[in-house]
Amino acid sequence: MKRRKCGKLYGIGIGPGDPKLLTLKAKEIIDQVDIIFSPKGDEDKTSLARSIIEATTSVPKEFVELPFPMTRNKKVLKVYWQKAAKRIAEEVAKGKQGAFITLGDPFIYSTYIYLLRTLRQDFPNIEVETIPGISAFNAAAARAQVPLVQGDERLAILPVTKDLRGLRETFEAFDTVILMKVGSKLDKVMALLAELDLLKHSVLVSRLGQPGERMIHDLSSLNQFKREGYLSVIIVKNPKRGTLS
Amino acid sequence: MKRRKCGKLYGIGIGPGDPKLLTLKAKEIIDQVDIIFSPKGDEDKTSLARSIIEATTSVPKEFVELPFPMTRNKKVLKVYWQKAAKRIAEEVAKGKQGAFITLGDPFIYSTYIYLLRTLRQDFPNIEVETIPGISAFNAAAARAQVPLVQGDERLAILPVTKDLRGLRETFEAFDTVILMKVGSKLDKVMALLAELDLLKHSVLVSRLGQPGERMIHDLSSLNQFKREGYLSVIIVKNPKRGTLS
Repeated sequence: MKRRKCGKLYGIGIGPGDPKLLTLKAKEIIDQVDIIFSPKGDEDKTSLARSIIEATTSVPKEFVELPFPMTRNKKVLKVYWQKAAKRIAEEVAKGKQGAFITLGDPFIYSTYIYLLRTLRQDFPNIEVETIPGISAFNAAAARAQVPLVQGDERLAILPVTKDLRGLRETFEAFDTVILMKVGSKLDKVMALLAELDLLKHSVLVSRLGQPGERMIHDLSSLNQFKREGYLSVIIVKNPKRGTLS
Repeated sequence: MKRRKCGKLYGIGIGPGDPKLLTLKAKEIIDQVDIIFSPKGDEDKTSLARSIIEATTSVPKEFVELPFPMTRNKKVLKVYWQKAAKRIAEEVAKGKQGAFITLGDPFIYSTYIYLLRTLRQDFPNIEVETIPGISAFNAAAARAQVPLVQGDERLAILPVTKDLRGLRETFEAFDTVILMKVGSKLDKVMALLAELDLLKHSVLVSRLGQPGERMIHDLSSLNQFKREGYLSVIIVKNPKRGTLS
């Protein structure tokens, strides 16, 4: 009797942009799987994730782009996650080994989290293994040579919301604060940092590891770069708490 | 006229323990450098960092272990950092390329931060490049299949202090809290988690990627494992805030 090969899905963090920041494990799995799945937003002309892995891994036989629209409407998104989960489940059910690749680390602000939840709900029997990746903020800190936390220091990582909710309290209670998804809220963030006298203790890194990478080590020197908020990370060190400045 | 080769130091994060979690960049640099420096604590019989890189990289010509005693006495430590910085600076001054290897990410609770600061103070002309690594908490989350943050969620990373200072407030203000350096404070942490009804939303991962790795998904089932605190990370998800549970 012939036994059927068991399929499996790997959720793989491919790091922040530099293809050399893939792990050995990520490369090894991507080289071996039968099929690769990559999330694709509306505005992605070519897939960034695809170009990253093509720089260091063997070109796979199949490459499937799964569309995810840039909307915050959860009902709309849910339909896309369900479609993506179904597509993946169909391939894995054939006995294929697949890899869903995602920028940064799969469990830090990633589409993979929603996909994994949908897979567990709709296809609970599929075997899934998650492989960690270098987060954008770890790479940004290394690039800017800014240590994040030492000794008893505390680190907070949060996306900037429209009303900057909780941000002031966080700057007071943490030695280092990493602001993600700054985008169009850069002006508001700058105003708050100025008020708290934190501009000169803040570093902005944008388009990390990509053409046009920028690093600004003292945000009081930033004025006409409003569009830098896009794809950027800001690291703020509180000099009143920290022991490094 | 013969020009002298310029030396350089790389500070390299080698990840949480699994040698396959080195990045391609880390491996490439370690394979090429002339000399490797590794921090070594009092109690390390064999260097964990050394065994990790020996599993996947070429054995280097020179391997130097730099002693760092397990003390919180800053004056004592400073002497060791200065000795280590001097040792490294001497080798780099000869034109050698060196790598200082460190577990996890070099800028998250690492001896490298102190060393880098000392190097900048005492030998400001030495070129240093920092290469990020997979943090223990990213790997722990992937291993335990626990997503950390999505959407507008907030993540806090902090070491447990003796008096658990600020911990209660942090659990209230953050969706996910990662507790590092739990050690002998495990009992106190368990008591607080029980009081806040968070035990069943907490995951403990200890000895990650090493022999004897343990993962406990609901801490209310943890009773006689008091020594698990050593080398462990606890991930706590606040069900009142989070959208994942």
